[in-house]
Amino acid sequence: MIHPIRLFITGGTFDKKYNERNGTLFFKDTHMSSMLDLGRNLVDVELRTLMMVDSLEMDDEDRQVLLNQCRKCANERIVITHGTDTMEVTARLLGESITGKTVVLTGAMIPYAFGSSDGLFNLGSALAFAQSLPEGVYIAMNGRYFTWDNVRKNKDAGVFEELG
Amino acid sequence: MIHPIRLFITGGTFDKKYNERNGTLFFKDTHMSSMLDLGRNLVDVELRTLMMVDSLEMDDEDRQVLLNQCRKCANERIVITHGTDTMEVTARLLGESITGKTVVLTGAMIPYAFGSSDGLFNLGSALAFAQSLPEGVYIAMNGRYFTWDNVRKNKDAGVFEELG
Amino acid sequence: MIHPIRLFITGGTFDKKYNERNGTLFFKDTHMSSMLDLGRNLVDVELRTLMMVDSLEMDDEDRQVLLNQCRKCANERIVITHGTDTMEVTARLLGESITGKTVVLTGAMIPYAFGSSDGLFNLGSALAFAQSLPEGVYIAMNGRYFTWDNVRKNKDAGVFEELG
Amino acid sequence: MIHPIRLFITGGTFDKKYNERNGTLFFKDTHMSSMLDLGRNLVDVELRTLMMVDSLEMDDEDRQVLLNQCRKCANERIVITHGTDTMEVTARLLGESITGKTVVLTGAMIPYAFGSSDGLFNLGSALAFAQSLPEGVYIAMNGRYFTWDNVRKNKDAGVFEELG
Repeated sequence: MIHPIRLFITGGTFDKKYNERNGTLFFKDTHMSSMLDLGRNLVDVELRTLMMVDSLEMDDEDRQVLLNQCRKCANERIVITHGTDTMEVTARLLGESITGKTVVLTGAMIPYAFGSSDGLFNLGSALAFAQSLPEGVYIAMNGRYFTWDNVRKNKDAGVFEELG
Repeated sequence: MIHPIRLFITGGTFDKKYNERNGTLFFKDTHMSSMLDLGRNLVDVELRTLMMVDSLEMDDEDRQVLLNQCRKCANERIVITHGTDTMEVTARLLGESITGKTVVLTGAMIPYAFGSSDGLFNLGSALAFAQSLPEGVYIAMNGRYFTWDNVRKNKDAGVFEELG
Repeated sequence: MIHPIRLFITGGTFDKKYNERNGTLFFKDTHMSSMLDLGRNLVDVELRTLMMVDSLEMDDEDRQVLLNQCRKCANERIVITHGTDTMEVTARLLGESITGKTVVLTGAMIPYAFGSSDGLFNLGSALAFAQSLPEGVYIAMNGRYFTWDNVRKNKDAGVFEELG
Repeated sequence: MIHPIRLFITGGTFDKKYNERNGTLFFKDTHMSSMLDLGRNLVDVELRTLMMVDSLEMDDEDRQVLLNQCRKCANERIVITHGTDTMEVTARLLGESITGKTVVLTGAMIPYAFGSSDGLFNLGSALAFAQSLPEGVYIAMNGRYFTWDNVRKNKDAGVFEELG
């Protein structure tokens, strides 16, 4: 039996909403619960929203908060939703500092609220990898997984890939 | 580097369509390619449609076809989309007969064409489990995975669970 | 200022749901309120569900109920959601019997719950026609309107058209 | 028989897309054809894209282009898709200058691409009003219609209403 998976929310494209008053995108509440419902998820998860930011605006202090939360929680398996633009930066920090846990970062290229998002696919894969990969820090995107020290976002193509 | 994953399509709720002429549900072509596109999948997959049936109508001969295909393909990792009603029957046949490969069956409770399906979540998790679980035959549903000899569909609740 | 529009629900494809336990389609509650919300409708409507049936199963008694409701309500403008298969039969009965009111029947070829329905488009047009057409009984489908005595469903093409 | 309806596209929220590279909203091609397909529209329409702009950026010259196009086209019935922020400004210009035609402006509060848009409802009502209202210039939003000289957008509520 697998212990509950800790699910940390940090924002990112996953949770962007459309403001119909002024036509901009913004963050309010996470869509994570409705995504888990839509997926009929029965994995035992403990959900916590740590912040709700675009990852371009995530600073060192934010990352330190996230690292501390990953360290001190009792869970051995953790999934983190995160903006894709700096996901590799956060993965590196966590990868250099965390041992004894399986941590999987995931995100989305299209907001879930927009009806045709890659987010549900990524969430399904991230929860699966968190259950089945050995300890370590990973990024799960595009159906694949990457170890924290061998991944970057190819910003032109909008996809994740191994280094060099 | 992981070899391509073989993706066998057998039909099931995943691929049901609505016939607007007579108001019934039917099978035509698989939605698998558009699902993989929507998920921005970059896992190397080799897609093959073996049949397109409701799993209640899948017979011994159909299952034998599927078993033979799993055996003879070169791929060591296989994902099978399958109706949920008899998924455990097929998993048992495959589990008793296949060695040296990781085979993951998955399905959906709501047709993908209906806009709010669990299928994309399940597909993401199935592809992830196929990459990360050791050899064996598994069912991936509701974010979880089950070994072929310890799973059944709880038809009242519409979910998968361990035996006894 | 236009008086409230009476909105009678009778079922039809508009309101079919997918039963994920047994894979069939069924009726439960109408989606009309969520459709009006999605359309940000501000037309004053009075909603009443009269029945919830496939129009192939609507009998003479059902149609008499609908006719009586149309006659006795105080509203001069009425929209009726109705299955498309016998919409022309009901329109004929109402057209031969009702004077002094604008009555618009509408429906859908794809259930609203399936995410990509023509229903929202038809509902928008039906409410508009009910506000702007002179008294009479009409069918509003495919963006067009038809008078009750010059319309039939072309079952092969799945569209509505004038007679002869 | 009603002549073809001219359908002028000017952009607006209707046609905003999400740029998954940088997370902003932008215009590219109109979604009008797929919206008409989704609605199974059979009204004869002649589609022309005049510009593709946010209505806050529409200037006097743009409006003059639109006015000239409305005047010189042979069609007596015209639907215009338009951003909601300055829809009343354009309606006033057209209303003061056009005679002998029925012109209906419509828009959306949520981009069509976002899956749960009011756009399809508004499009259905605009096409219906264009077929059934007498000559004049109108705004069709929220299921209602307004004459050009008695309408404003209530920016706080995000809805259209009559003046004072």
